[in-house]
Amino acid sequence: MVLVSTRNPLNIGAAARAMSNLGFSQLRVVNPYEASFREARSAVGAAPLLKNAQEYKTVADAIADCSLVIGTTAAHNRELQQPLKLLPQAVPMIRKRLKSGRVALLFGSEKRGLSNADLSHCHWLLHIPTRTEHLSMNLGQAVAICLYEMIRVGVKGKRAELASDRGKRKVASSGELERLTSLLLDALRGSGYLDQQTAAAKEEKIRRMVRRLNFSADDAEVWLGMLRQIAWKLNQR
Amino acid sequence: MVLVSTRNPLNIGAAARAMSNLGFSQLRVVNPYEASFREARSAVGAAPLLKNAQEYKTVADAIADCSLVIGTTAAHNRELQQPLKLLPQAVPMIRKRLKSGRVALLFGSEKRGLSNADLSHCHWLLHIPTRTEHLSMNLGQAVAICLYEMIRVGVKGKRAELASDRGKRKVASSGELERLTSLLLDALRGSGYLDQQTAAAKEEKIRRMVRRLNFSADDAEVWLGMLRQIAWKLNQR
Repeated sequence: MVLVSTRNPLNIGAAARAMSNLGFSQLRVVNPYEASFREARSAVGAAPLLKNAQEYKTVADAIADCSLVIGTTAAHNRELQQPLKLLPQAVPMIRKRLKSGRVALLFGSEKRGLSNADLSHCHWLLHIPTRTEHLSMNLGQAVAICLYEMIRVGVKGKRAELASDRGKRKVASSGELERLTSLLLDALRGSGYLDQQTAAAKEEKIRRMVRRLNFSADDAEVWLGMLRQIAWKLNQR
Repeated sequence: MVLVSTRNPLNIGAAARAMSNLGFSQLRVVNPYEASFREARSAVGAAPLLKNAQEYKTVADAIADCSLVIGTTAAHNRELQQPLKLLPQAVPMIRKRLKSGRVALLFGSEKRGLSNADLSHCHWLLHIPTRTEHLSMNLGQAVAICLYEMIRVGVKGKRAELASDRGKRKVASSGELERLTSLLLDALRGSGYLDQQTAAAKEEKIRRMVRRLNFSADDAEVWLGMLRQIAWKLNQR
């Protein structure tokens, strides 16, 4: 659970409470608006969880060890650059991926949600199926619903017995993808494809594209080596 | 949705917001602690719903026109007098009953939940499957989760709507992938990563890797442009 630029510390506390209720423990916060969020009274019964929350300066740092990063969005028809899934469909995919690595679920600020820069770190986006006339949910409630959907399958006793992942290739982590992205950007600048002042929008587009390609950890390693050499050669002169 | 003896008006507002988000309209309150609950700021976007809430003095009055009354409880092993069902199992029964009459879902006060007197009006009880170590949920979050479970079955139609919004991305053709591969090989030779006499085996390895990456036709186009520029620059001198 990654809360990005949350404004109201009570919402962080409420998210912590729902996590504790439903059996999730790892809360990460990126640039919280109020430094004092750890004292939020709304974390009834979840003070230890809130105390252990990890704080980060950037989304990239917060998700570096995750192999699947999902952004939540209320907008179901904003010009979204990534695949959008509804919560009930998304969870089986999340559960599957959790068997082989960490999954990050990102929630943006109460006012604006996740920025395009934040979203560019995401593999795909998730939407709670709210009414078109009233899309925007309270943050703590949205968190609670997402986590409930995560646990509800186990509850029915209906074990989500997913196809064995044995022998499957390990997926690249977000940290690896970000290193790959930044080497690619170096190479593109060195070649003149991007100029030094290139708009952030263009970089975000490339970041999203890298996430779409389903790099395995092994393949990412090879690409890192290739791009490192290319970028070095291009920037050598 | 019947909120009984709610203490914090912000929780009534939050419940109203979740109702509005998820498509429910009839809020009833029994003996709210704060008479001013209708102004709760937490009802973001749901002010009309909150304004139309019906107020009652007793649970009996509030549910008089309902043919099924369900009490919610955090206690999963209090000496309960009625059948207890977990939320995912309960909802199909609620949906069935809704076809022929009204159903009331009762939530008690934040401190004590529903009293035994309140519970005595209920046909059966409902429990959100929280952890045994931390059973008690925030009221607004509990309401949101229950209503989400109510609508999640019907989400399939919306799924089609989303799917048609997006249009599937066309997969890159083998020809495009091969052009991409050969430009990549050019760049790798230009950078010194591969030497001119590199064994065919190494090239094949890279070719296979490109095939593993799930390029869409659009993404392949962008990569072709990037690699063309990089290869040109590297081989320019």
